[in-house]
Amino acid sequence: MEQSAAQTTEAQAAEKAGERSQHGLDRLLASTLQSRIAGAGVSVELWNGVATTPQGVTCGTLVVHDRLALIGLLVDPDLQFGDLYSDARIDIRGDFGAVLEALSHNSLRDSLTLRERWALLTEHAAGVRAARRNIHRHYDIGNDFYRLWLDRDMVYTCAYYPTRDASLEEAQTAKLDLVCRKVNLQRGDAVIEAGCGWGALALHMACRYGARVRAFNISREQLEFARARAVRAGVSARVEFVEDDYRNITGHCDVFVSVGMLEHVGLRNYGALSEVIGRTLDCRTGRGLLHFIGRERRRPLNAWIKRRIFPGAFVPTLSDVDARVLEPCGFATLDVENLRLHYARTLEQWWERYERAVPEVRQMFDERFVRMWRLYLAGSRAAFAAGWLQLFQIVFAPPDLDVRWTRDGLYASRSERA
Amino acid sequence: MEQSAAQTTEAQAAEKAGERSQHGLDRLLASTLQSRIAGAGVSVELWNGVATTPQGVTCGTLVVHDRLALIGLLVDPDLQFGDLYSDARIDIRGDFGAVLEALSHNSLRDSLTLRERWALLTEHAAGVRAARRNIHRHYDIGNDFYRLWLDRDMVYTCAYYPTRDASLEEAQTAKLDLVCRKVNLQRGDAVIEAGCGWGALALHMACRYGARVRAFNISREQLEFARARAVRAGVSARVEFVEDDYRNITGHCDVFVSVGMLEHVGLRNYGALSEVIGRTLDCRTGRGLLHFIGRERRRPLNAWIKRRIFPGAFVPTLSDVDARVLEPCGFATLDVENLRLHYARTLEQWWERYERAVPEVRQMFDERFVRMWRLYLAGSRAAFAAGWLQLFQIVFAPPDLDVRWTRDGLYASRSERA
Repeated sequence: MEQSAAQTTEAQAAEKAGERSQHGLDRLLASTLQSRIAGAGVSVELWNGVATTPQGVTCGTLVVHDRLALIGLLVDPDLQFGDLYSDARIDIRGDFGAVLEALSHNSLRDSLTLRERWALLTEHAAGVRAARRNIHRHYDIGNDFYRLWLDRDMVYTCAYYPTRDASLEEAQTAKLDLVCRKVNLQRGDAVIEAGCGWGALALHMACRYGARVRAFNISREQLEFARARAVRAGVSARVEFVEDDYRNITGHCDVFVSVGMLEHVGLRNYGALSEVIGRTLDCRTGRGLLHFIGRERRRPLNAWIKRRIFPGAFVPTLSDVDARVLEPCGFATLDVENLRLHYARTLEQWWERYERAVPEVRQMFDERFVRMWRLYLAGSRAAFAAGWLQLFQIVFAPPDLDVRWTRDGLYASRSERA
Repeated sequence: MEQSAAQTTEAQAAEKAGERSQHGLDRLLASTLQSRIAGAGVSVELWNGVATTPQGVTCGTLVVHDRLALIGLLVDPDLQFGDLYSDARIDIRGDFGAVLEALSHNSLRDSLTLRERWALLTEHAAGVRAARRNIHRHYDIGNDFYRLWLDRDMVYTCAYYPTRDASLEEAQTAKLDLVCRKVNLQRGDAVIEAGCGWGALALHMACRYGARVRAFNISREQLEFARARAVRAGVSARVEFVEDDYRNITGHCDVFVSVGMLEHVGLRNYGALSEVIGRTLDCRTGRGLLHFIGRERRRPLNAWIKRRIFPGAFVPTLSDVDARVLEPCGFATLDVENLRLHYARTLEQWWERYERAVPEVRQMFDERFVRMWRLYLAGSRAAFAAGWLQLFQIVFAPPDLDVRWTRDGLYASRSERA
């Protein structure tokens, strides 16, 4: 009996020692994680109560629910953070948006990780079939889903807020108008739009400006929706929605626009896009606009976003686009506007609407999807707010075209009206 | 006698035949020249009365005064046109400005000549001593000379015309204000200006905005003028004019501006400029502006301008500046405005003033100089009007800095005031 009691005590002691060393290891891992995010003012808390807090003001806590998740965050944070959050193996306590923004901001000045360098080296661009697959995966999730949180015109790109308190609806309409004004759109102009989403810009150009638009897209769901709207608006004769890849665009136009497609083109296909613009846009009087998410320096897209949300996407610098798209086809840049803060606000409004619609999203998809999309929307908002991403609108034209004398007409009168 | 008469006749016949073949050769050369400039609608007329006229409307005549000049125009037009005009071996009959613009426009869509390709390949950038020599040659011609045709503030860069009929004085002041607004200049801001000319912007920032400015230049004549103005304006304590190369700029600033210096930096020195901006401009709250002549695609500067007017100059594309100056130091582009038409107008006004001042210029310099500067001013006006050159203003800041919500304040209220 004594021996057996002693054995029990030994086993318990060994177990306790094991627990202690396990605890010690967890504490070490948590501290390592903490040291990486200390600049963001985010605490770390583990499943077993182990917790670390950075010096200074904190904005929230990263709660890690199991040991493998903790290791994942240390080994491959770019990809794992998103996957672990989607699987509810990590959580954020405190202001979700503020914590994501702080984390995003904290890594802004980091140099490239090995993974990022590798991603840049192996960056490849989608062929026509892969592009179709990539676009299908994101944009054909279901119009009913997007309708839950986009504006009534289903504009799925950065809005333009004439004032900070404009509604999403107002801001999307203001964006469509801003684009039309920037390219000096005239009644009767022939427009080619590369990547038209659910058709809002094409329809706006036809209905409000009397333009004739051929709009290209490879998302079938979006096109069906757009075509039905053209019929309802009675402008089917002036707006043609074409199911085809931007590389196959033919014809001739006065205005070439592409809003939010460049991110899906991939660096190695910029030459092909340049060639399309060069052969379609009038080389004497044509005006063009590219609207895209960009960066201030060459970096690969976040690994999780690229893997789970936007397969095949690449976010360029301004010089990537200028050197590879515009210069080869001989158009001169007239105007570049960085609308970073407007995309942060747009995403904030999408995210708010999404949260209100979560009960309906749960009817359509599983909890993993709900969390994944929350992180994508809130995380993208954070990335723009923190300066991790930028939003560029470039206006271009033949080098000798007089498009406007000053920008006064672009902003002045409109802001008075607003 | 009969024999001698026959000999005379033969000699005369041979001479006439020689003249005819010489005439035939001249006609051939003139036709070749004509074929190259036919698109411009410019006729060719030779010293001996040989003349060719292109089909369609003509805007003027290129008069060639000797055979060697004609050959020079055919063999090396880029360099020879300017030299021959300066030496009065060619002239233009008709509207001087219109002919230069038509010639400039005519060559806009040409692919690069062999000479241009070679010039790009061998493009080199000036070291500190060569830069000083280059700058001295152009900017130290004499303040009295520049005073004859610049505005009263001696601003020797593209002006900004709020309306097309603004005076040069109004437009230069508007430009200085536009630059200050674009960088959101605040009272007490520390400014570094790289390449300050005669000091107008630095003084404007100090006098009107209460900024503290350190302005760098390597032209001694300009600096002496600028320092005297600072004393007269009573702002010597707030504006320091430093005689040093941009590469030696030290210190720390809230605002970094460089207006019209980049053209003299040379592509291979952009890394050095980037390094200067990176180490001086505040990486949290700094704002910067680069104002420079650019192109829509990589081309060398016109050979004559580079040889006779701006030794060492190089005119970049937007992507050259973005990729080599801004991206390496981690600043994000906020705004790019192309003021091409404003530089055409500025140069038009300079040229008009210059022509009125020609009698005084003749007192200072020889006829060659008078013609050289006429061609430089009128030719530059033509180059901007024809889209051969562009003028870019880039505003940049740390990628996470909120500089302004929209551009409304930049233009709206101001234009009402104008």
